[in-house]
Amino acid sequence: MAGQHFLFVPGPSNVPTRVLRAMAVPMEDHRSPTFPKLTLEVLNGLKKVFKTEKAYPILFPSSGTGCWEAALSNTLNPGDKVLVSRFGQFSHLWADMCVRLGFDTDIIEVEWGVGAPVEEYRHRLSQDKNHLIKAVLVCHNETATGVVSNIKAIRQVMDDLKHPALLMVDAVSSLGSIDFQMDAWGVDVCVSGSQKGLMLPAGMGVTCVSEKAIEASKHSRYPRCYFDYQDMLNNNAKGYFPYTPSIPMLYGLRESLRMIEEEGLDNILSRHERLAKGVRAAVTEGWKLSLCAAEAKWYSNSVSAIRVPEGVDAVKVIARAYQKYQLSLGAGLARLSGKVFRIGHLGDLNELMLMGAIAGAEMAMIDEGVKVERGSGVAAAMKVWQS
Amino acid sequence: MAGQHFLFVPGPSNVPTRVLRAMAVPMEDHRSPTFPKLTLEVLNGLKKVFKTEKAYPILFPSSGTGCWEAALSNTLNPGDKVLVSRFGQFSHLWADMCVRLGFDTDIIEVEWGVGAPVEEYRHRLSQDKNHLIKAVLVCHNETATGVVSNIKAIRQVMDDLKHPALLMVDAVSSLGSIDFQMDAWGVDVCVSGSQKGLMLPAGMGVTCVSEKAIEASKHSRYPRCYFDYQDMLNNNAKGYFPYTPSIPMLYGLRESLRMIEEEGLDNILSRHERLAKGVRAAVTEGWKLSLCAAEAKWYSNSVSAIRVPEGVDAVKVIARAYQKYQLSLGAGLARLSGKVFRIGHLGDLNELMLMGAIAGAEMAMIDEGVKVERGSGVAAAMKVWQS
Repeated sequence: MAGQHFLFVPGPSNVPTRVLRAMAVPMEDHRSPTFPKLTLEVLNGLKKVFKTEKAYPILFPSSGTGCWEAALSNTLNPGDKVLVSRFGQFSHLWADMCVRLGFDTDIIEVEWGVGAPVEEYRHRLSQDKNHLIKAVLVCHNETATGVVSNIKAIRQVMDDLKHPALLMVDAVSSLGSIDFQMDAWGVDVCVSGSQKGLMLPAGMGVTCVSEKAIEASKHSRYPRCYFDYQDMLNNNAKGYFPYTPSIPMLYGLRESLRMIEEEGLDNILSRHERLAKGVRAAVTEGWKLSLCAAEAKWYSNSVSAIRVPEGVDAVKVIARAYQKYQLSLGAGLARLSGKVFRIGHLGDLNELMLMGAIAGAEMAMIDEGVKVERGSGVAAAMKVWQS
Repeated sequence: MAGQHFLFVPGPSNVPTRVLRAMAVPMEDHRSPTFPKLTLEVLNGLKKVFKTEKAYPILFPSSGTGCWEAALSNTLNPGDKVLVSRFGQFSHLWADMCVRLGFDTDIIEVEWGVGAPVEEYRHRLSQDKNHLIKAVLVCHNETATGVVSNIKAIRQVMDDLKHPALLMVDAVSSLGSIDFQMDAWGVDVCVSGSQKGLMLPAGMGVTCVSEKAIEASKHSRYPRCYFDYQDMLNNNAKGYFPYTPSIPMLYGLRESLRMIEEEGLDNILSRHERLAKGVRAAVTEGWKLSLCAAEAKWYSNSVSAIRVPEGVDAVKVIARAYQKYQLSLGAGLARLSGKVFRIGHLGDLNELMLMGAIAGAEMAMIDEGVKVERGSGVAAAMKVWQS
């Protein structure tokens, strides 16, 4: 088919040509005397993206899922208690991993469409007089529902209660797209990946660990080897890795960090907010449909999950968009299958790219019998972006 | 510096331009209806490289180290006994991982420079009347010493004794370069990586598991999640992955498998043998130096570790080659540091590329005071390659 495919899943996001080109490098000796320059440049550059001066970025050849496992296996002891809330497929998968890895997992069940329940965290942590809870897990941006949570408020709860647990945050689909502040929010482990706001291909886990998390790792007896923080930090200090790193990804990351520096991280976050507002206007004002996110305070600036009307199968809308209009939309996951489709609006993106996606989703919906007015989504987004 | 860098570490190996180009793809939805075609093509293609019809290739976003961990954590129970031999830095690291992951690790210590001691495996397995040993680990090609081991003979020992342990083989630096036969040798888990004989960049773990290993994984209570075989196989069966795969690597692998198909795997193995013979002639007949590999039966066709004369520091030879001649040689690792340098001769390689490397190593040695005759290495290799 002619023309470009419109990729609007909430990750992998579109990789800029500059990054693709930067990754087309010959292989080299990752133990050479010049290699540390690359390693140290990307690790230092990442600190700005995490908004940290004190914590340590770590890169694993893995997906973000690997960084979830690293967070747990490095800092906890077998059977330790963790507190986590579940309000979408990705917060579910992290909670499920806690169970599978044998941790005593206290799961706060929350309606899908809202975010981390701050008062329920307060309640359960306040009951934990003996500090059996060793880690508090929160999904910053639930990719399945398009819901962002208030990490700062969770930190405040922990501070209010003087609870010593580690605060671990999944920022896979927020880092570089939605404001995230490692130091200011007192996050101990932030888990992310290459294929979202960092504008790289899938294939590298990107995480960041606080001094407190590193200290905990020294007392952890949980079995681990591949994902060991200490091996990584010991080698990283000299600019090397404990095993062969994903060399093209390091070059890609160097380039994407330069792009982030050029545009300015806060400008990028503002751009994501502006683009997201246009998409939400298309959904609610143009199409008169509902977002999965139940209230404005939960609206995610990197992904919107859109509920299709009763009687319409979102799976068919997505299939139509893919086959007829070369548009990849995100599917509804698990209990949302058939009920929602998702538009990812993160990474290397602008208004006109999104205009194509909004128009494509609109046509696919009309083809599948959804009653939306032609051009209404695009018009509503225009109104936001022109103001 | 002008001209191309000569990369002769034993991996990462040189990536063909065709593969680099194939990897420069826009991102896409890894859950799209067309994605399984790619997944299934590469998984099926890999079967030929492993020489298997029955076993299951698995791709992890990881390094080969991750596949080591997957082999152990999927098939064994906590504290299970494993038998492994150690004769170089990589067989050491795998044995060390067994210890770190809490397995009862019976290590056969062997002189560095020889390979897996078949009779000692026989001895220890024959003493294991109650079959407490659940896995037998062997490093097929010890990258640190340039030594290849006889996997078929280890299998024969296990069959002779009717020992039911799983046979796990590290073929990181042999797969696609030195003959490896998953089915014929009854290997249960083969561990490899992208950046050696498969001619891809570093960043993907490539492994292959037998039905017997999969069956063992069903009874394993070892905690795991990221590296779980069953999650992977369940998703792979439909052409998908349990989490975001490294998409560019899959396209690169598709291209490298096509190249392997075009040249023919057995022709590639013969090419590696011919090239390796030339390198060994340069070392022993030209330079009058010794290989780390103690006898001809241990000679590796993918890497040669070369002992420098007493009084010479191999670290300086390697630094000189890198800085003055744009040649990356492999360093001596651990106890071999300063005593050897290594020439990797694997992957996308031919005679004239190796001529450059041999000449470069020769000049660097002469610069550092090694008494070798100018042109002697190249001349000895010529004699082999012209015959």
